[in-house]
Amino acid sequence: MASSSSLTLSQAIFSPSLPRHGSSSSSSPSLSFSTFSGLKSTPFTSSHRRILPSTTVTKQQFTVRASAAVETLEKTDAAIVEKSVNTIRFLAIDAVEKANSGHPGLPMGCAPMGHILYDEVMKYNPKNPYWFNRDRFVLSAGHGCMLQYALLHLAGYDSVQEDDLKSFRQWGSRIPGHPENFETPGVEVTTGPLGQGIANAVGLAVAEKHLAARFNKPDAEIVDHYTYVILGDGCQMEGISNEVCSLAGHWGLGKLIAFYDDNHISIDGDTEIAFTEDVSARFESLGWHVIWVKNGNTGYDEIRAAIKEAKAVKDKPTMIKVTTTIGFGSPNKANSYSVHGSALGAKEVEATRNNLGWPYEPFHVPEDVKSHWSRHTPEGAALETEWNAKFAEYEKKYAEEAADLKSIITGELPAGWEKALPTYTPESPADATRNLSQQNLNALAKVLPGFLGGSADLASSNMTLLKMFGDFQKNTPEERNLRFGVREHGMGAICNGIALHSPGLIPYCATFFVFTDYMRGAMRISALSEAGVIYVMTHDSIGLGEDGPTHQPIEHLASFRAMPNILMFRPADGNETAGAYKVAVLKRKTPSILALSRQKLPQLAGTSIEGAAKGGYIVSDNSSGNKPDVILIGTGSELEIAVKAAEELKKEGKTVRVVSFVCWELYDEQSAEYKESVLPSSVTARVSIEAGSTFGWQKFVGDKGKAIGIDGFGASAPADKIYKEFGITAEAVVAAAKQVS
Amino acid sequence: MASSSSLTLSQAIFSPSLPRHGSSSSSSPSLSFSTFSGLKSTPFTSSHRRILPSTTVTKQQFTVRASAAVETLEKTDAAIVEKSVNTIRFLAIDAVEKANSGHPGLPMGCAPMGHILYDEVMKYNPKNPYWFNRDRFVLSAGHGCMLQYALLHLAGYDSVQEDDLKSFRQWGSRIPGHPENFETPGVEVTTGPLGQGIANAVGLAVAEKHLAARFNKPDAEIVDHYTYVILGDGCQMEGISNEVCSLAGHWGLGKLIAFYDDNHISIDGDTEIAFTEDVSARFESLGWHVIWVKNGNTGYDEIRAAIKEAKAVKDKPTMIKVTTTIGFGSPNKANSYSVHGSALGAKEVEATRNNLGWPYEPFHVPEDVKSHWSRHTPEGAALETEWNAKFAEYEKKYAEEAADLKSIITGELPAGWEKALPTYTPESPADATRNLSQQNLNALAKVLPGFLGGSADLASSNMTLLKMFGDFQKNTPEERNLRFGVREHGMGAICNGIALHSPGLIPYCATFFVFTDYMRGAMRISALSEAGVIYVMTHDSIGLGEDGPTHQPIEHLASFRAMPNILMFRPADGNETAGAYKVAVLKRKTPSILALSRQKLPQLAGTSIEGAAKGGYIVSDNSSGNKPDVILIGTGSELEIAVKAAEELKKEGKTVRVVSFVCWELYDEQSAEYKESVLPSSVTARVSIEAGSTFGWQKFVGDKGKAIGIDGFGASAPADKIYKEFGITAEAVVAAAKQVS
Repeated sequence: MASSSSLTLSQAIFSPSLPRHGSSSSSSPSLSFSTFSGLKSTPFTSSHRRILPSTTVTKQQFTVRASAAVETLEKTDAAIVEKSVNTIRFLAIDAVEKANSGHPGLPMGCAPMGHILYDEVMKYNPKNPYWFNRDRFVLSAGHGCMLQYALLHLAGYDSVQEDDLKSFRQWGSRIPGHPENFETPGVEVTTGPLGQGIANAVGLAVAEKHLAARFNKPDAEIVDHYTYVILGDGCQMEGISNEVCSLAGHWGLGKLIAFYDDNHISIDGDTEIAFTEDVSARFESLGWHVIWVKNGNTGYDEIRAAIKEAKAVKDKPTMIKVTTTIGFGSPNKANSYSVHGSALGAKEVEATRNNLGWPYEPFHVPEDVKSHWSRHTPEGAALETEWNAKFAEYEKKYAEEAADLKSIITGELPAGWEKALPTYTPESPADATRNLSQQNLNALAKVLPGFLGGSADLASSNMTLLKMFGDFQKNTPEERNLRFGVREHGMGAICNGIALHSPGLIPYCATFFVFTDYMRGAMRISALSEAGVIYVMTHDSIGLGEDGPTHQPIEHLASFRAMPNILMFRPADGNETAGAYKVAVLKRKTPSILALSRQKLPQLAGTSIEGAAKGGYIVSDNSSGNKPDVILIGTGSELEIAVKAAEELKKEGKTVRVVSFVCWELYDEQSAEYKESVLPSSVTARVSIEAGSTFGWQKFVGDKGKAIGIDGFGASAPADKIYKEFGITAEAVVAAAKQVS
Repeated sequence: MASSSSLTLSQAIFSPSLPRHGSSSSSSPSLSFSTFSGLKSTPFTSSHRRILPSTTVTKQQFTVRASAAVETLEKTDAAIVEKSVNTIRFLAIDAVEKANSGHPGLPMGCAPMGHILYDEVMKYNPKNPYWFNRDRFVLSAGHGCMLQYALLHLAGYDSVQEDDLKSFRQWGSRIPGHPENFETPGVEVTTGPLGQGIANAVGLAVAEKHLAARFNKPDAEIVDHYTYVILGDGCQMEGISNEVCSLAGHWGLGKLIAFYDDNHISIDGDTEIAFTEDVSARFESLGWHVIWVKNGNTGYDEIRAAIKEAKAVKDKPTMIKVTTTIGFGSPNKANSYSVHGSALGAKEVEATRNNLGWPYEPFHVPEDVKSHWSRHTPEGAALETEWNAKFAEYEKKYAEEAADLKSIITGELPAGWEKALPTYTPESPADATRNLSQQNLNALAKVLPGFLGGSADLASSNMTLLKMFGDFQKNTPEERNLRFGVREHGMGAICNGIALHSPGLIPYCATFFVFTDYMRGAMRISALSEAGVIYVMTHDSIGLGEDGPTHQPIEHLASFRAMPNILMFRPADGNETAGAYKVAVLKRKTPSILALSRQKLPQLAGTSIEGAAKGGYIVSDNSSGNKPDVILIGTGSELEIAVKAAEELKKEGKTVRVVSFVCWELYDEQSAEYKESVLPSSVTARVSIEAGSTFGWQKFVGDKGKAIGIDGFGASAPADKIYKEFGITAEAVVAAAKQVS
């Protein structure tokens, strides 16, 4: 079973190609650009270099509909830009007003940069929001989502119609209170929790840089797009954004362009009360190119020039600090926190209409604005067509690479990939599941073209290196080992960006299981936004020993079992580890966590890939008629203990079933019949053992059963000693079994 | 009941005062400093200014034992420093070797700065590690804990004897694998998870700055100490450290001095692979003073001069980047990751002994080194004595302030403080528990001298402003409203530092409940390190409405109920909110989380402070004989729904008990008799309702009961609509009750 995908390469529209500003396609050198300033005067170039010295005119490669292009350009005069920008502002104002809830301030301040991005700079196809080579846009300051919805509406995306705007933040609406990729085609990633968006954007840019390096050829630049992001003061304050921006600088993500909406207002008022650092200097220290647009409210040409400059810097990401006025246009509320997160109110809406000279009804898009934006539908279709033609050429010349890229674009896994998964017998050597995990990772990387990942500075402890690949670095971006440094939160969110770039990109990331506490914000977004990231979490219990309680997970298994749409695996040996990976790879819309041992574990009889895929299954049983005297349930490293206890009890004449509960969520999905066959309701004598919190285990052991676990913090000592002192032993299981049966 | 504390002001040793370098005490101006360079040549000054131009000699305030001071200084020649530094290195090497586990690299590289800090710079009393006015030291790179243990051992702390060094990382040892404040007196805070320590240090420095501003008088500088911290590359990469360092710069924490152990090695190898930013430039952008010590391995005078310079900068924190060699002295492993986290091995230990000319047995402290360090015991006692005398003077002049400060130092709460808590009747107006929380916060701030806190840029949403106080800012540090900006993780860890500075400091901090995901790393350290921080977490369910699933907690209650030593409260109304605060204030060694509603809730009949303090209790019941037909259990905003459902069921003739489960952990602490009186085992017809994950509820509703909740993500819509669509309604409770009874 391969994961399904709605994306195909076959959505080509066979019309002549059409150039757009800032796109990589060629253009007619005879067009006049005299009415444009800044970016608009950039001559179009061949696909190899986007921006050349302004005197250079390069050879035309594709047929160009010059007349359409000219029409487009003629209309883009200052008046229509201003009108379009005000349309964006009022769509945001009106939608928030109707919902009586939302954040009008950011859209009002950022409308100019939003307009320039979607109308003049970005390449996209509104009728196919998933077209592979589109530029990506991320609104990291997700509360300002009406900016993005207004832009998608104007640009012609089917997902945001006038009726949608009128149902903003209502039950069943396609445009919810924060941008959700799974609700609104055209929204790339889920944002709202601050800092996640800029981190996702770094992930998107990593994906582009990696794919471009792997698949582009001297005669075919098949991967070539930018990632744009708008982030606010809130994003800047979050630690995660410093983590990922440090990495973006390190990796030299030249096609990442971030707009910092520098409006000096956050919820508690002026940023002076908590945020007085020199943000520009910080970004320079992180290796970014920094530009300051001093007038973000009306300085269209400044914004255009900044983007042009940003694109000219190829070896560094660029931060464009755009100083804006939050709530621009509102005579009484602009530049104050009161416009950040509440509707303006009828009176102030009226005052703003007067102030900006906006005579229209709510939600009205003036005809000339509509007409101006209408070109994006044919242009976008043409862009995709052009790219499809390019890809067809590419496929002819580079069949193997094209097949890999296609798999990445569509998410269709290569046939038979799962045969690469290793299997084990009880005779296979005992090993830590972290090592067995590495065998799986390396096996998968050989057969899955989109498999890549790394660790937060623990590769040699998490055992996550892909041995056949080098490091993804600034000058070796074609490689697949990512070095995240000690930046867990950023790592998770970057992986979300990678996963959401293309359905066939399957990122994994790793740290000690306890440090999921540092990255839980990103992991929850994986779950919510259906990003199938694989979290390789080693050192999964007190079994790590001497490092002590700061490093020993206790409540972590329970905390993730409670989280929606994430699979919490705790495999016991090689077969279960392979089973967990099989499911994790297949579940492209559900992230998976693998909790793996530091310590050696035996390969157990009765474990299997198929069993693990059911979440809970019988490993051994000497009873008949589905009625053992007692059921022992274990997970991970404690399954071995359950097996040992069963041996003891069997010696005493008991019938004993041992059940492995490698993934509760998968077990919950099984049929009632299957569950009854594993945990018959008539057998209430049940004992579970797990070196972690007993919280939640009552669900399986029931009122009459007993859960053995650890409900306090761990300790620093050799692992065996801790297990013994904490009573995580076969003796304890035997005693409990006698007590309950 | 006031929380107990082992700290008293009465531990004064009545001996003459004795000056130490860098201390605020006075000194004899006639002493000769000619044999010293750097810091050592700094003349001692009066208590008002620590460092004056070197020609200034100020008036002597206290009696000085000049002979002792001279003896101290004479011994500190280059040879003994070198020998002491090597003692530190080998204590670390030997302890790690004996444990065959641990991190020798950092102690070997950081021994010089460690020596200078503990032997020449810091003021402390080894026989009373809790002396209030001590300088604080934090090893943020906690894995290098053998550095700190070696220093505590040399300095004369009773907590680290030779036998302790030999039991490093063993069961029952007083020196565990990472520094734990609750295991080792002399260790201020628990570190290990990277970045926490620098954040704690910022909290300690905030506490000092605040208390100094509040309690110092022109004639009595009663609060006056520094916070020193060593952090490594790992700490620097973590987002939390950027968050807190931005705040430290903003707040101008001049008495915070951070040593950045710049050794270019992390676990995965050279930091070049993931960390190439310009750290010094970043810290300058954050408003820090930055110094670079290029030779941290042997440049003692450079280190001393840097500290001197750092102390001279009063309005900014200082980062001293100290370039060191990890594993300095190891001929074959220095400057490589192999010395980071493993024992050197017998052969390399031998080679290192030869290389550094160290002829001694393992764990040996040479007599001259012992003798050199021995002065710290009398000097420390004298420092405390001097301070006690100063405090006695202060108390005479400023009785009121002294009483408040004493309460902060000892943790003894003012008698009758709990009378300030508001109470409510069913006639009191309906209100959101976040608003009721604000009433409590403001009531408590009036009676608790050490109560202070703030929000991560959501003060006006979390309702956390203390109305009688202004903002703690660079120039108004005496105020008690902290403005953390959008920095949740840093906020939590800073509060840990504040709480662990003095037993009577009671910090609270706030954000939306869902964003505990961003700060869970710090919250777990609160729980582990027994820091009684109060987490004020509003917008606690789908009840927040339109902001949608990114902002709606689902699994968060369960995730904290599973965490050891933290109280997860979800109060239903005013009385329960007051009850939660009462417990939270009393539990100084257990942090508390209050999950509070955005939406209005009625004041319910039957709720009480006393009930809430039991965790679970009966709110209403129309049955007799402890045998109701059905038990309905609710928490927080759903208790009202349970009450409504009970009314319905009663109309139909049922006997119904309504139980509030405001804090599971407190309920678990109650006697079996009490629990039987609330949830009689004979009554299996039980229904719980909570607008969150049902995970864990089976424990209370049992095999035959039913838990109503939400096991998927939320949605963006008005709250009432979401409640209805998700089935969190009285009708659903009534239906479930009929099903189970």
